[in-house]
Amino acid sequence: MTDQTHRLSPAEIQHAIDTKTKPVGALGRIETLAAQIAAFRNNLAPRVDSCVLTIFAADHGIAHEGVSAYPQEVTAQMMLNFLAGGAAANVFAATLNIPVQVVDAGVAGDAIAHPKLISRRIAAGSASSLTGPAMTAAQLAQALAHGADIARTTTADALAFGEMGIANTATASILLHKLSGLSLHHLVGRGTGLTDTALDHKRRILERAAARCPDKMDPDTILAEYGGFEIAMMAGAMQEAAEIGRLVLVDGFIATAAAAAALARAPHIRPAMIFCHRSQEAGHRAALDWLGADPLLDLDMRLGEGTGALLAWPLVRAAAAMLCDMASFESAGISTG
Amino acid sequence: MTDQTHRLSPAEIQHAIDTKTKPVGALGRIETLAAQIAAFRNNLAPRVDSCVLTIFAADHGIAHEGVSAYPQEVTAQMMLNFLAGGAAANVFAATLNIPVQVVDAGVAGDAIAHPKLISRRIAAGSASSLTGPAMTAAQLAQALAHGADIARTTTADALAFGEMGIANTATASILLHKLSGLSLHHLVGRGTGLTDTALDHKRRILERAAARCPDKMDPDTILAEYGGFEIAMMAGAMQEAAEIGRLVLVDGFIATAAAAAALARAPHIRPAMIFCHRSQEAGHRAALDWLGADPLLDLDMRLGEGTGALLAWPLVRAAAAMLCDMASFESAGISTG
Repeated sequence: MTDQTHRLSPAEIQHAIDTKTKPVGALGRIETLAAQIAAFRNNLAPRVDSCVLTIFAADHGIAHEGVSAYPQEVTAQMMLNFLAGGAAANVFAATLNIPVQVVDAGVAGDAIAHPKLISRRIAAGSASSLTGPAMTAAQLAQALAHGADIARTTTADALAFGEMGIANTATASILLHKLSGLSLHHLVGRGTGLTDTALDHKRRILERAAARCPDKMDPDTILAEYGGFEIAMMAGAMQEAAEIGRLVLVDGFIATAAAAAALARAPHIRPAMIFCHRSQEAGHRAALDWLGADPLLDLDMRLGEGTGALLAWPLVRAAAAMLCDMASFESAGISTG
Repeated sequence: MTDQTHRLSPAEIQHAIDTKTKPVGALGRIETLAAQIAAFRNNLAPRVDSCVLTIFAADHGIAHEGVSAYPQEVTAQMMLNFLAGGAAANVFAATLNIPVQVVDAGVAGDAIAHPKLISRRIAAGSASSLTGPAMTAAQLAQALAHGADIARTTTADALAFGEMGIANTATASILLHKLSGLSLHHLVGRGTGLTDTALDHKRRILERAAARCPDKMDPDTILAEYGGFEIAMMAGAMQEAAEIGRLVLVDGFIATAAAAAALARAPHIRPAMIFCHRSQEAGHRAALDWLGADPLLDLDMRLGEGTGALLAWPLVRAAAAMLCDMASFESAGISTG
């Protein structure tokens, strides 16, 4: 499918887009997206027909510090909801014929046995990053490797990733703070719906947790110190997916933290990443701006689970289909003025 | 499917949305859209599974005044491209399994015989609105009736409408100017890609055409004076679709002019209308603001053909699926904090 002997130039790609039967530039962001896909796949007619959503679930020790509006048991309950097909991600995916796979990356409590669950439990939740590392270096390596393995064994042109983990906006905020150097204040938000008082508390907890470590650390140290088994596993999956030529559909705030970690580890994978939507979670805008990412959708969503990535998938398909299937002015016999 | 004995209140609809397994408000615009669909269909679990795109093509006498970057013959050529499946609307629709039907509402030149073409030709193009009415009152009535007929015979939960007609941004600008009272200056843009000089010329032509008639006229007089067979037919189709309980997916600038005309004729159909995207065409923002419409997508597109409506369809499906298929906290046994 890819001609390895010739690397397409931006001008060749633009020419292919500009000769399609439409005024130059008239498909706006779809054209930009098409150019990204053509460049990543090194193909002027890249078939992008299939997508799979993988939802990684895990618990966070920092949840015990009162940084979330929901109790920790909701992570496991929502994991069961994904497996039963009742969550937003499931019903959105069903309308798009996208299969959903659910990974237990380390949910608190006993392991759940379910025929459809992919069990890659690192531990029954990470440790609290307020008082020490969220995970060991060995646990991080395991999470990254499981993620890569899941990406390799998922057959689709595009891989969408979602997550579930009570308190994981807290974890994502610190990760992005340490990775980007952006102020924690701009990266902390209400998550699932904190009150003003609870938001102040979350900020104070995260400032204390952040102060525990130096500002500058390598990405793996940041991931181990501040964790999130589901975030680390997603970062490993994103990196591997990109390396093996799959498009990576980046969802909201937490997925963006995983993407930022993956990019810090492997900056060359950026062309694979499609930033799908801007979350209403306060820190997402700052994180996207830092990454130079202008997401496709802005629908005031803040759910996670991959819901934003799912809703952007039709745009990705349309962009690829424009390249593959649209007539050119010449082939359609149309006057160009 | 609709319980006629009870009209759902906004509170009942909001309660149904808020008990789904997600934090309150976490699906943002998808929730607002779901509330609109539930209210319009008077159903807390409205199935919205099917969509059809109808593209209306016609020519405009005002094209002879040099207001478009492309020659008039492109309308017929693009109509053939739609019929051959090579246009952007076709390839987008194919990725979404949306059937496309093409209507000749009055393309210049001889009638084209094609087995798939729906021929509803009012005339071989409208007259130039620079010097007189674009169409007669009888032609307008015929166009509106054909549109209504097409809507009635199109079986789908949602009807998306697109258009093709060289110079139809010029026509849409004057229609919106006369319907809204907004300044023509804010409603005239580059269409398929005019240069600065050509844009100035377009403005002058449209100001002269607009000056031909009073500022205040009833919507049918506005439609007849300034025309667009495809716009009038689309307005008739939108109005009838709404009346018979179908959702109306409003595309870009020209479709918005048709929607504005339909709303001026029948203001009560507003709940059926979903404004799908904001076009890059300069006047669309002003027109949408005037209508109080905040479209779902903003992708810098300006192609027409229904392409923006198509790309918003997955959001509409997702919103309805949220209502129909998502678990509630109670049904999924999830803690609410």
